[in-house]
Amino acid sequence: ARTGDAEVVYGAGKTPEQVVAILRTLHDRHPERAVLATRLSDEAMQAAAGTGADVDEVARAAVLGPLPTTQGLVRVVSAGTSDAPVAREAALAARVHGAEVDEVRDVGVAGLHRLLAVHDKLHDADCLVVVAGMEGALPSVVGGLTGVPMVAVPTSVGYGASFGGLAALLAMLNSCAPGVVVVNIDNGYGAGVHAARVARRAAPRGSAG
Amino acid sequence: ARTGDAEVVYGAGKTPEQVVAILRTLHDRHPERAVLATRLSDEAMQAAAGTGADVDEVARAAVLGPLPTTQGLVRVVSAGTSDAPVAREAALAARVHGAEVDEVRDVGVAGLHRLLAVHDKLHDADCLVVVAGMEGALPSVVGGLTGVPMVAVPTSVGYGASFGGLAALLAMLNSCAPGVVVVNIDNGYGAGVHAARVARRAAPRGSAG
Amino acid sequence: ARTGDAEVVYGAGKTPEQVVAILRTLHDRHPERAVLATRLSDEAMQAAAGTGADVDEVARAAVLGPLPTTQGLVRVVSAGTSDAPVAREAALAARVHGAEVDEVRDVGVAGLHRLLAVHDKLHDADCLVVVAGMEGALPSVVGGLTGVPMVAVPTSVGYGASFGGLAALLAMLNSCAPGVVVVNIDNGYGAGVHAARVARRAAPRGSAG
Amino acid sequence: ARTGDAEVVYGAGKTPEQVVAILRTLHDRHPERAVLATRLSDEAMQAAAGTGADVDEVARAAVLGPLPTTQGLVRVVSAGTSDAPVAREAALAARVHGAEVDEVRDVGVAGLHRLLAVHDKLHDADCLVVVAGMEGALPSVVGGLTGVPMVAVPTSVGYGASFGGLAALLAMLNSCAPGVVVVNIDNGYGAGVHAARVARRAAPRGSAG
Amino acid sequence: ARTGDAEVVYGAGKTPEQVVAILRTLHDRHPERAVLATRLSDEAMQAAAGTGADVDEVARAAVLGPLPTTQGLVRVVSAGTSDAPVAREAALAARVHGAEVDEVRDVGVAGLHRLLAVHDKLHDADCLVVVAGMEGALPSVVGGLTGVPMVAVPTSVGYGASFGGLAALLAMLNSCAPGVVVVNIDNGYGAGVHAARVARRAAPRGSAG
Amino acid sequence: ARTGDAEVVYGAGKTPEQVVAILRTLHDRHPERAVLATRLSDEAMQAAAGTGADVDEVARAAVLGPLPTTQGLVRVVSAGTSDAPVAREAALAARVHGAEVDEVRDVGVAGLHRLLAVHDKLHDADCLVVVAGMEGALPSVVGGLTGVPMVAVPTSVGYGASFGGLAALLAMLNSCAPGVVVVNIDNGYGAGVHAARVARRAAPRGSAG
Amino acid sequence: ARTGDAEVVYGAGKTPEQVVAILRTLHDRHPERAVLATRLSDEAMQAAAGTGADVDEVARAAVLGPLPTTQGLVRVVSAGTSDAPVAREAALAARVHGAEVDEVRDVGVAGLHRLLAVHDKLHDADCLVVVAGMEGALPSVVGGLTGVPMVAVPTSVGYGASFGGLAALLAMLNSCAPGVVVVNIDNGYGAGVHAARVARRAAPRGSAG
Amino acid sequence: ARTGDAEVVYGAGKTPEQVVAILRTLHDRHPERAVLATRLSDEAMQAAAGTGADVDEVARAAVLGPLPTTQGLVRVVSAGTSDAPVAREAALAARVHGAEVDEVRDVGVAGLHRLLAVHDKLHDADCLVVVAGMEGALPSVVGGLTGVPMVAVPTSVGYGASFGGLAALLAMLNSCAPGVVVVNIDNGYGAGVHAARVARRAAPRGSAG
Ligand SMILES: Nc1ncnc2c1ncn2[C@@H]1O[C@H](COP(=O)(O)O)[C@@H](O)[C@H]1O
Ligand SMILES: Nc1ncnc2c1ncn2[C@@H]1O[C@H](COP(=O)(O)O)[C@@H](O)[C@H]1O
Ligand SMILES: Nc1ncnc2c1ncn2[C@@H]1O[C@H](COP(=O)(O)O)[C@@H](O)[C@H]1O
Ligand SMILES: Nc1ncnc2c1ncn2[C@@H]1O[C@H](COP(=O)(O)O)[C@@H](O)[C@H]1O
Ligand SMILES: [Mg+2]
Ligand SMILES: [Mg+2]
Ligand SMILES: [Mg+2]
Ligand SMILES: [Mg+2]
Ligand SMILES: [Mg+2]
Ligand SMILES: [Mg+2]
Ligand SMILES: [Mg+2]
Ligand SMILES: [Mg+2]
Repeated sequence: ARTGDAEVVYGAGKTPEQVVAILRTLHDRHPERAVLATRLSDEAMQAAAGTGADVDEVARAAVLGPLPTTQGLVRVVSAGTSDAPVAREAALAARVHGAEVDEVRDVGVAGLHRLLAVHDKLHDADCLVVVAGMEGALPSVVGGLTGVPMVAVPTSVGYGASFGGLAALLAMLNSCAPGVVVVNIDNGYGAGVHAARVARRAAPRGSAG
Repeated sequence: ARTGDAEVVYGAGKTPEQVVAILRTLHDRHPERAVLATRLSDEAMQAAAGTGADVDEVARAAVLGPLPTTQGLVRVVSAGTSDAPVAREAALAARVHGAEVDEVRDVGVAGLHRLLAVHDKLHDADCLVVVAGMEGALPSVVGGLTGVPMVAVPTSVGYGASFGGLAALLAMLNSCAPGVVVVNIDNGYGAGVHAARVARRAAPRGSAG
Repeated sequence: ARTGDAEVVYGAGKTPEQVVAILRTLHDRHPERAVLATRLSDEAMQAAAGTGADVDEVARAAVLGPLPTTQGLVRVVSAGTSDAPVAREAALAARVHGAEVDEVRDVGVAGLHRLLAVHDKLHDADCLVVVAGMEGALPSVVGGLTGVPMVAVPTSVGYGASFGGLAALLAMLNSCAPGVVVVNIDNGYGAGVHAARVARRAAPRGSAG
Repeated sequence: ARTGDAEVVYGAGKTPEQVVAILRTLHDRHPERAVLATRLSDEAMQAAAGTGADVDEVARAAVLGPLPTTQGLVRVVSAGTSDAPVAREAALAARVHGAEVDEVRDVGVAGLHRLLAVHDKLHDADCLVVVAGMEGALPSVVGGLTGVPMVAVPTSVGYGASFGGLAALLAMLNSCAPGVVVVNIDNGYGAGVHAARVARRAAPRGSAG
Repeated sequence: ARTGDAEVVYGAGKTPEQVVAILRTLHDRHPERAVLATRLSDEAMQAAAGTGADVDEVARAAVLGPLPTTQGLVRVVSAGTSDAPVAREAALAARVHGAEVDEVRDVGVAGLHRLLAVHDKLHDADCLVVVAGMEGALPSVVGGLTGVPMVAVPTSVGYGASFGGLAALLAMLNSCAPGVVVVNIDNGYGAGVHAARVARRAAPRGSAG
Repeated sequence: ARTGDAEVVYGAGKTPEQVVAILRTLHDRHPERAVLATRLSDEAMQAAAGTGADVDEVARAAVLGPLPTTQGLVRVVSAGTSDAPVAREAALAARVHGAEVDEVRDVGVAGLHRLLAVHDKLHDADCLVVVAGMEGALPSVVGGLTGVPMVAVPTSVGYGASFGGLAALLAMLNSCAPGVVVVNIDNGYGAGVHAARVARRAAPRGSAG
Repeated sequence: ARTGDAEVVYGAGKTPEQVVAILRTLHDRHPERAVLATRLSDEAMQAAAGTGADVDEVARAAVLGPLPTTQGLVRVVSAGTSDAPVAREAALAARVHGAEVDEVRDVGVAGLHRLLAVHDKLHDADCLVVVAGMEGALPSVVGGLTGVPMVAVPTSVGYGASFGGLAALLAMLNSCAPGVVVVNIDNGYGAGVHAARVARRAAPRGSAG
Repeated sequence: ARTGDAEVVYGAGKTPEQVVAILRTLHDRHPERAVLATRLSDEAMQAAAGTGADVDEVARAAVLGPLPTTQGLVRVVSAGTSDAPVAREAALAARVHGAEVDEVRDVGVAGLHRLLAVHDKLHDADCLVVVAGMEGALPSVVGGLTGVPMVAVPTSVGYGASFGGLAALLAMLNSCAPGVVVVNIDNGYGAGVHAARVARRAAPRGSAG
């Protein structure tokens, strides 16, 4: 991509054959880089595995080619297990775009002690990605605990008046914690890209303002 | 009212004269009971004061007649100062409907330490009313800390994608904390009535399940 | 759960294997308590039955382990047969959370005589759960007949401008009956939890305010 | 009007001068008929009065010219005093379009005994107009009590999640009472026209199917 | 039904067995009346046919028992063939509720000459039902041509910004033709009931106001 | 403007001084061209008049500098007098952008005979602009009568479920007449620009396909 | 069609047999003209091929009968491959309605250099159709580069807060480029018809204003 | 603030006296730091000036106390003059939170040449803030030109189907440019905070990944 980022194939609505063909084309063009494919069907994951790509079944994604060396640390924080696919897509995207990645799971707002138990991990990252569905409250709580740059990702997890993730999206856009930025519902990919860009540019920790 | 509750005058869209007239009529019918008037304009508050009613300028409300003896305790928990009118309306409604009332203020989710500092107050009430605007996250956090029955009140505080309190309303309806129940945007009155009903029926604390 | 409530498995989006595994883990940890699993697919209900759990096909739910002794009475009032799954989920949740439960069915607002025929049942409960789809009018009517604390549950029953239960949700939030509190569309579970908490804390009937 | 109905001036957004000019023109063309002007500002009501028109301050409307003889009976049923302007507009429109009109007020769903006390009035009309704001439940209850043709009118009375009358509109469109038809929010005029057309065509009561 | 109308089974979400069982129960109770079942699946239509009911495949509905004698005439006017199921449901409901019925098809607003060619049919009915999807313009045009009482039915026919019939619903609620009343999206049944009630009560044509 | 069009000042939210300053700057740069200012307050119209601009009080717009010679004919068709400001803005914009303009007023869908009376005018233009509020039905009817390119303009005229012009916008987007294109609510300007571009390029009438 | 345009069959919701039957009927009536069928299922495309129609699998459309001679040039500009079906439907519709058509693909706003590389193609057409999903930004960019009449087509490509194409639709309606007109989501057909009408009437290029 | 950021007073809905009181309290607590007050009324700006604060009339904001030394560079890019208040609020917030700030104005998507003319400025910043109203297309275009981390700010500039900035918000959330993150409508403040955090942590330019 012209912006210097890794190439990405958005798999939704593509046949396994199309996914594989694009993966191969992009890989052949730059065999020294990783290509990421996201939103894969079961069949597309299987087909991607056949190309030698590493398939992540939780993220429903595949990576073909060597991962880049990393610079900076992104932590992906999430609440429930239902949010796992989106959290993992964010983690994978950040890794492919050049950041070291760590996942912090099962720290929903309704179980505050678990979040407070990992409090330190909210301070030593270069960028946080915070993933939550339903009421989307987690970014507000995390944002009150740390000044590390943070991207909030609403997920479509929920029912009824969640309206496919709209409730979480609106909550995050209205967060009373300062500086919370937001991406589209379920867009782990976009959050991972932004976080990696921030982390890659960060000065080694300790020296930052 | 046939349900055994106090009489209430909803002042929005009523002239000061109308408010005063209804207050007096209801008071004359049952001088031994309190009548509550809510959503009063500046002029209506002044006119109500002229009838001998106690006026609460924060709640924009007035009470005429003696308050009932109380049974049970309602705590009204709120985040920001902008939510104060709604919190106070809830407190007043609960008091007029027969519950003892205590207000816990300035405990927003983005300043968790303040909420944790009053942790005990979340356990010894018979019913909680939790008031929050913007992303409406406070009920989820409180609901994870206590099993006391709780009513969440979204407020219209916010701008842009808050859509007049819709963001907070949706968040509260989608709370991942179990048993959170919700009232209309800015409806402190309704929350206070429900909470007072719950508190009045509660067995003296210590004996509850 | 930290709040002292029963553990609950939300089955939507989980495989039968996952449901069974979580049921067993929670049951093994506290064999003396009940675990509730809701929103089960046909397959998950069958798998749950294999663990020895009691399966309720109307509620699409299962309970593993002994039910708690009860304190207080919750009545679940509903209109049409289409609302039965949500009403039953509420009843089951209230029972698992420690309240005695009774169901009052087939009392829609368009057949007022049936509702008036069971009028007494609206007065002797500690908390009411009122379930209705389409126009969601039942809580307003019930709320005008009784001062017992009440939780309204909108259901997704309807079509066209019901918008998946939004019409009923909005109606309940705007109820002119004082003190009506509301949960998410189809959230029988949340209503049952709140109602059981209220009922469990209630003083034996007769002594209440 | 080509459809044989009375002429009507919609006053919203018109100056007092414009209202008066149109009233006079229409009146001069057919001095033997009534002309109705609705949605008048205070100034326009005063100006209309100056033309010799009868002004109804509750409906914010004026009638110039002799009322037609009536055929058939329309009853306009409403809940709260805040709905009075819309109910009165409906009554006036029905009268101007040739039906006898009767108003039944203060019969909201949260005070069912008052509605049941006037039960007979729901049966001997040729068409009912039922006006309600907030949750818009009244048409469902009335529709369960009578088979007389009924038009439901949602009003913009309410706040928060009433969204300017949307909640009541949706409720009425989803009424479980069969045969409820609905007009736009606050559109007393349209309901009155339809009801008058139905009533005018009705066979003298007693002979109907 | 208590309102004196025919009994109706709403088939959506019911199994063929349930539909047949209810049809038979209602038929056995009053074998001299017709029972209508609507919104039937292919299987339910076949099962209904097995009970001796008349099945209408366009309306996806069935009638068991003798049709009532008729009084008054309802005309059902529709635009496109995609609106046929809703138009037919309206026609069937009106017939079962005691009105003579006639259908006027293929008269969309974009082919005005066809509508003008049947102009007379818009004048000699006791009530019109006008069915339209997409932009829902037909009731406005018909309403400008006749003063006969009219019920507009929006259908879910359309795509994109039709939002499942919302565009047509809003258009009909905002019709500039006076006295247009509206039912829920696709609710042919409700329109038919209202229209039949109006028609049954109508004085023999010629004598009406 | 780089696209070869006239310069336009959008006056909403600008002070009279700002409007006048921009008008003068643009006029001085190209005194041989017309500059259009739209959405002017009363004060801005007066100030604009002081610069020598021609002010159109209906359109709330002003033109400074000589109008261009015209090529092709745009007809602006509208229904009610409330739509006049938008229709006039469209006419003015089309004229300033180089087309001859004619206005056809008072031809709403509920008075079809008036529209049919001017039928010929729908055929001999190079582009039509059709302006309508409320249910926005006029473009569908016009679009069924002519194959001339047409731009539909929804206006914010209406109340209640018109939602500020949304009903008309959705109706026009869903028009069953082929080839109807739409602009933003009240955007007479945009419609006029498109229509003028089409008209200016049109071959002299008679030769077109 | 009365407006002089080609006949079109809208295939959505029609069986293959219905599509074929209508295609044949229209073809037999005017064998010298082309009939277009759109929105075809796989089965309907196969059935259409059996009639001798030319099937376009990308557009999911078929054409039966000879194409008309062309007059004027329409260019269809699109961004991503996911937008291809809509772009092709527009192209086909424009061709069938008598314009020469050229497609410009893969020129999304996030790869501006590709758009600038084909800059000339935006100037020498008689009408442009610009197709884009997701944020729908392409028409604004193209509209800043050229004064050629342009129709924008939002597509339903996207997820989450794209709300089925609503985001792109709103963006296009609010375009700051003057004179952008818009059709319904995915309505390539409507855009093609308008563009062809404009192109067919255009004077041979070079002579236009 | 606990997160190490500057203190900020949100002035909307606060009286001048309240704003001044809070400004003074915060300033007295830490006279060595800057306090920012935003969304000030004319009166509040004047009152703030009286405290010695620097008032920015475009941003409607005030700063009391010395600005921090800066680290890293934030560029604020905006399209129209109407977006200036939001852009300036972002710039001020970023400056107060410790970043050097530069504003790039008047580079809307409909005038691409102006944007391309400042192309270099999109590459040498540590974080970009991109502000746009109406269709909100600017972040997509900028995001295709640079890989620098970017925050998009939708503004409420627009009318009709802009729905108070919703159109721009949705567009930005659906941007096809990778890694675009978004804040609430008009929330220049939040964007400035995030951007400053990113910039402050950035390694001196040239060394970044
Ligand atoms: N999971 C994702 N969510 C949103 N956008 C994505 C995702 N994965 C890829 N993309 C975007 O899709 C583009 C590739 O789309 P395509 O060319 O259709 O495969 C990438 O450059 C990204 O901008
Ligand atoms: N702040 C409030 N919010 C909502 N409803 C209220 C409020 N205050 C009073 N009400 C309701 O309004 C009723 C009285 O309305 P009214 O007769 O118009 O004064 C009360 O019985 C309550 O049901
Ligand atoms: N097509 C329909 N659309 C809407 N409501 C209907 C329809 N058919 C039947 N109903 C309603 O459904 C009721 C019967 O519902 P049920 O008892 O569930 O079969 C009838 O009394 C009608 O009020
Ligand atoms: N009435 C209008 N509606 C929408 N856009 C307009 C209108 N008048 C002018 N514009 C647009 O506003 C631009 C000028 O905006 P400004 O520079 O803020 O005066 C013009 O080039 C048009 O694109
Ligand atoms: Mg969550
Ligand atoms: Mg809050
Ligand atoms: Mg119901
Ligand atoms: Mg009501
Ligand atoms: Mg139609
Ligand atoms: Mg109109
Ligand atoms: Mg795009
Ligand atoms: Mg912009």
